[in-house]
Order: sequence, then C-alpha cells, then structure tokens
Amino acid sequence: MSLLVVGSVAFDTVETPFGKRERTLGGSATYFSTSASFFSPVELVAVVGEDFDAEHVSFLEGRGVGLSGLTRAPGRTFHWTGNYGLDLNNAQTLDTQLNVFETFSPDLSPAHRQARVVFLGNIDPDLQVRVLDQVEAPRVVGADTMNFWIHGKRDALLKVLRRVGVLFVNDAEARLLAGEHNIVKAARAIMAMGPQRLVIKRGEYGALLFDGDQVFSAPALPLDELFDPTGAGDSFAGGFMGYVSRTGELDPRTFREAVIVGSVMASFAVERFSVDRFRSLTPSEVAERYGKFQRLAQFGDMRA
Amino acid sequence: MSLLVVGSVAFDTVETPFGKRERTLGGSATYFSTSASFFSPVELVAVVGEDFDAEHVSFLEGRGVGLSGLTRAPGRTFHWTGNYGLDLNNAQTLDTQLNVFETFSPDLSPAHRQARVVFLGNIDPDLQVRVLDQVEAPRVVGADTMNFWIHGKRDALLKVLRRVGVLFVNDAEARLLAGEHNIVKAARAIMAMGPQRLVIKRGEYGALLFDGDQVFSAPALPLDELFDPTGAGDSFAGGFMGYVSRTGELDPRTFREAVIVGSVMASFAVERFSVDRFRSLTPSEVAERYGKFQRLAQFGDMRA
Repeated sequence: MSLLVVGSVAFDTVETPFGKRERTLGGSATYFSTSASFFSPVELVAVVGEDFDAEHVSFLEGRGVGLSGLTRAPGRTFHWTGNYGLDLNNAQTLDTQLNVFETFSPDLSPAHRQARVVFLGNIDPDLQVRVLDQVEAPRVVGADTMNFWIHGKRDALLKVLRRVGVLFVNDAEARLLAGEHNIVKAARAIMAMGPQRLVIKRGEYGALLFDGDQVFSAPALPLDELFDPTGAGDSFAGGFMGYVSRTGELDPRTFREAVIVGSVMASFAVERFSVDRFRSLTPSEVAERYGKFQRLAQFGDMRA
Repeated sequence: MSLLVVGSVAFDTVETPFGKRERTLGGSATYFSTSASFFSPVELVAVVGEDFDAEHVSFLEGRGVGLSGLTRAPGRTFHWTGNYGLDLNNAQTLDTQLNVFETFSPDLSPAHRQARVVFLGNIDPDLQVRVLDQVEAPRVVGADTMNFWIHGKRDALLKVLRRVGVLFVNDAEARLLAGEHNIVKAARAIMAMGPQRLVIKRGEYGALLFDGDQVFSAPALPLDELFDPTGAGDSFAGGFMGYVSRTGELDPRTFREAVIVGSVMASFAVERFSVDRFRSLTPSEVAERYGKFQRLAQFGDMRA
C-alpha cells in the first residue's frame, strides 16, 4: 500500500555524553521516511529552506524516498538544538528555530491524496487535520504528538484522534493526554478518543501495543552502546508503518510484527548520530536483528 | 529438589493510595515461601517474637511451608512501616523495628543442611555467608540484596556473590553494585563478581535475565489494579526458585520459564495487601496467567 509521511525535515545540533554533532540531518519526516524505506516506497511531504544541502536530498533519493512533496521555501531550514544527560531518556531543548517551518501548510498533490497509509509526524494538530482532509481514502492513519500539543492544542488534537488508526506516544504523553496515571486505564481512555490502536513507547523498556482488548508487550534490545536517541520514535514509527504498508494487512498479527520491526529500526537509529546508521544498514542486518528480538522474548510452556 | 529460604518473617504496616493495613503478615521469607509453595515443598528459616500470631503460623502450615526452622525468640517480631506514592515503584520507609531480628543468627538443622536449592533473602550479607557455610552441597543458590548492604557491607556482599548462582536485584541496585549506568555493562560487571545468572527486576517494565551471553526480556502484565507492591520481589523470587526446584533442571530454558513464573506470582501478589491474594489463589489461576504472559509476548516471523 502507498505510504505518505508529513512532518519536519530539519537540521539538528545534538550533544550526548558520547559526543556532539552540529547541523546534522534530522526531523521527524526524515527519520520516518528513511526507516520506512527499508520496507516500502514512501512519499515525504515537508518544507526546507534555501540552505538545505544537496547531499541530504541525494541521500533521501538514494533511499528511494519520494521527494515531489518536499518544498524549498525562501529562508532557512528548521533547526533544533538539544542535549541529553546520562540516562538518555529525555532530551533538553536548548534552542528551536522554526524558520521556514513556521509557515508550513501542506498541500498534497493529486497523487499524494491517493495514499492508503498515512503518517502524521509530530506537528501542529491543525496541520495534521489539514492533511487528513486532503487524503481521499486512507486505510490506516498513524500519528505522533507531544506534550506541547496535548497542553496547548487539545481540541485540535482531539479532532485528529477521532480519525487516527494508530497513535504513537510515550508513557508520559499517554498519562497527560488521558489525565490518568495507570497506563492500562490511560490506554483505555485514549482509545475512547478514537484510535483503534495505541503504541506506548517506553524507550529502554520496549513498547506496548493496545489493539482492541489485546495487549502486546515488546521488549527493547538491551544495548551496551547507545549514542544518540534523537529520532528513535520516528524511526520506530517508520519501521512500523513501512511494514504495515509492505504486508498490506491490518490484522493483529501484522501490528505485533510491526511493533518489533519498529523496535528493530529504533535500535539501529540510536547506534549513531543523525540517520547515519541507516546509511550503511542492509536488509539482512534488519532480518538478523528481528531474529535477535525473537530470541530475546522467547519462552516455553510451563511444565507441571 | 529440596528448597530452603532464609530471611525475615515480619509485621508490615503499609499505606498505599488504595488504603492502609496495620500489622499485616509480611517479610521476605514469608512472601518467598508462600509463593514457592505453589510449585515445590519449601523450608523456611527465620525468627519471630512472642507476639507472632498463631493464625499466621496456621496459614503458612496450610500452604505446606516447613516451619521447623522458624524460631520463636523472647521479644517482639520485626515490624516495618512504609508507604507508597502514586507511582508505586518506590517504598518510603517510615519506621523499622528490628526487634528479635536484630540478633538473628541462623543455625540450620541437619536436614536443612542437605537443601539443594537455597534462597538467601535480603538480610545482612554476613548472615548470608553464615547460611551458605552450613549448606553442604547446594545445586543452586539464589540471593537478594539491597542498596543498604551494597553501600554498607560491600566486602561481605562480594563474598556472598562469589557463591551465588542467581542474583535478584532491581535496576538501581544493579547500577549501584556495578558502578555503571548502562544496564548491559552493569550486568556484565556483576556477573564477573560471581553469579552465573542475574535477574534484573524492573517493576511495571518486567524483568531481564542475563544467563551466560544470553539475555531474556520478560514482560510485566499491564495491570489496571495494583494495590500494594510490598513483597512483589520476594514473590517473584519464590515463584522462580520454586519452579526451578520443581523441574529439577538448571538449563537456560528452565530459567526463562522461571522468570515468567516469578512474574506471574508477583502480578498476583500486588493485587491485594500482604500475602492475601495467595490465600485464595489456585494452581489453575497460575497456569491461566502464565498463558496470559505467553499471549502478551507472542509475535510471529517477519514476512518479506
């Protein structure tokens, strides 16, 4: 099924305990589309400034990402600066320069309006609705959001949620959105807002998928080297939605496998700065790591 | 294989967001032995005071726990008072009255010296060594410890660790013991101190088992009602060691299943105050919940 992502393409300046990188390729749509490209053709809708480097365009093209929806606008590209402490779970934002992203207002081409699988990156929920209004008959819509929108644009966000098939949030976002500390009750409350499926990302603790009245708990690969968590969530969503798009199936089994594929892609993303790990990643490495997740989670029947 | 536990039998006064109970049955050896009794005969070595209630003795006897090693000493029973906030992950100790536990010095009977499976509850590592010195030919020794001993009695603890087959700790204890934040590196450092296997308990995030160069990640059952986390860790260890004792096997497959059995028993323990959930629990409920963990963790092969 055809896959479309709308989100940000950005420059990131990131410092972790393991080093610092200035003005590297970042942004939700970048991580998503690069990750998804290992499983499915993917079309990217985003905006960059006049300063966006040709080498980044070449990289995305090289990954087979469709760039007809990548607009170049007068001005500079969105630039995020942040750092991480030793626990690497929470980024501290030092500076956000929206630049051309400030007036981003996605208009989809006739071809993009036919997308069957759509992912709404973490952008203003008013823009997320605007995108949904243009897609004619999506079979599954995935969406990300964050505390900033849950706090500041709740009504618009609730409009999005009514039309979302799979919502991706972390523990804290789920609790804030639901106004409920217990994660099972929070999940139930969020699904009552619309999403048929809810993925709760828990970083080094893996992920939960709530799907109807089923729950699936996916492990995280215990990593001894974690370089830069930036983009882990979007890489996860890219693997997840890319896999769903590839199989063309929307059954519980597929979504469970998609959570593992997402986890696999996130585990690669954090091994290097930016999308650098995806530059050399091969499909056989992806398959091998999927097998590692299987061995990590496997156990037998209880014996009497 | 015969199973022996040395630890505390206590009164607990506990307050959680869901209520308060005064002077209920508690203690590491109580939770451990009650939980283990669902899988294996278990012998308990501990001390109580003159105030220890006959009904608690009857309860343990009713569960088939061997009490020939339960000494009654002049004075009062160990009494712990604590409470939990909304996240239920960390107990705050309000009061600790060691009472008869202060001079506890376990002497094993000739029969207990023959135990093949031994669990050292969270007590002074000097006492843990004293117990190990008396057991003649254990096939597997499990042990628990805590920050208090890691800080205050490190040398004695290191002596214990050299003789331990399975160490049970939580994330924070593992990091403190190893002096290393990354959990994989911490596990490697701890196993270099002696334990062939390391279980890292992560509460609502499940548990990790490090076994040689294999890692197993066990999910936690997402619970919508969690009443009282007291004793969850000891109930986990009781289910784990009880299951190992029952199967009589010491292979990687058995230890993975044991982690799930431990998780099952912990998930029951937290549903009520004290050991109350174990009073009505049946083997078929245990088997049913094991099946729930299987469905929770199950996923298929990646499809091309």
